[in-house]
Amino acid sequence: MQTETTAVGSGTVATDETDRLIASDKVEGTAVYNRMGERLGTVHNVMIDKYTGQVAYAVMSFGGFLGMGESYHPLPWSVLTYDTRQGGYVIDLDRSRLEGAPSYTTSNMPNWSDQSYRRRIDEYYGVPSSGTI
Amino acid sequence: MQTETTAVGSGTVATDETDRLIASDKVEGTAVYNRMGERLGTVHNVMIDKYTGQVAYAVMSFGGFLGMGESYHPLPWSVLTYDTRQGGYVIDLDRSRLEGAPSYTTSNMPNWSDQSYRRRIDEYYGVPSSGTI
Repeated sequence: MQTETTAVGSGTVATDETDRLIASDKVEGTAVYNRMGERLGTVHNVMIDKYTGQVAYAVMSFGGFLGMGESYHPLPWSVLTYDTRQGGYVIDLDRSRLEGAPSYTTSNMPNWSDQSYRRRIDEYYGVPSSGTI
Repeated sequence: MQTETTAVGSGTVATDETDRLIASDKVEGTAVYNRMGERLGTVHNVMIDKYTGQVAYAVMSFGGFLGMGESYHPLPWSVLTYDTRQGGYVIDLDRSRLEGAPSYTTSNMPNWSDQSYRRRIDEYYGVPSSGTI
């Protein structure tokens, strides 16, 4: 994340955000936009490496209707930039590129243990593959 | 975390846990025990370094009554070990040592930007201080 937000959670415990740290339950539910200001989705959660404590991916939910049919797009943490004006994360991705990105639904969930799947994600977004076993 | 859980969230999106990765919203709400099997608290959330995506601390809530008066204990991620028998994290901390650990309530929240505060936590739990600016 490149820029910080000046917003502080109202009364949220553990100082949900500072210039350096942000609480996971504040990240969850944050809007995601592209550079044209289009709302792309919402951060559903982040996937954390159990051994290193490193966030591997933020999972963005996208589409769907009345809670059904949503797609989930794993995004490398490094592609998220917080934009105070937008009040959410901005990613450098137009809608068509988003539609072609690695994604899944509840009926075809990914195998996170599959290194080639993780590499696909990293390559799609042009980030170095994070070191994994 | 040293061991993995074999539990898989029932229908939780994004495969909430694999042998390597765990979803943040699955970590939140996980019980924390000590080695004597005493329930110490619950993981409230994790604090993530915005720039590196590294989890700095898991914040454990402890005590309180009817949602009031809870204490929050920041724990270095590396001191959490998942124990499948207990169905939660185990930390190597007896109750008295927990009571003396760095903690806060909603009325005296910490300054996470304060490097000395973060060092206090790391020293208390005997972990190397994570690199910070």
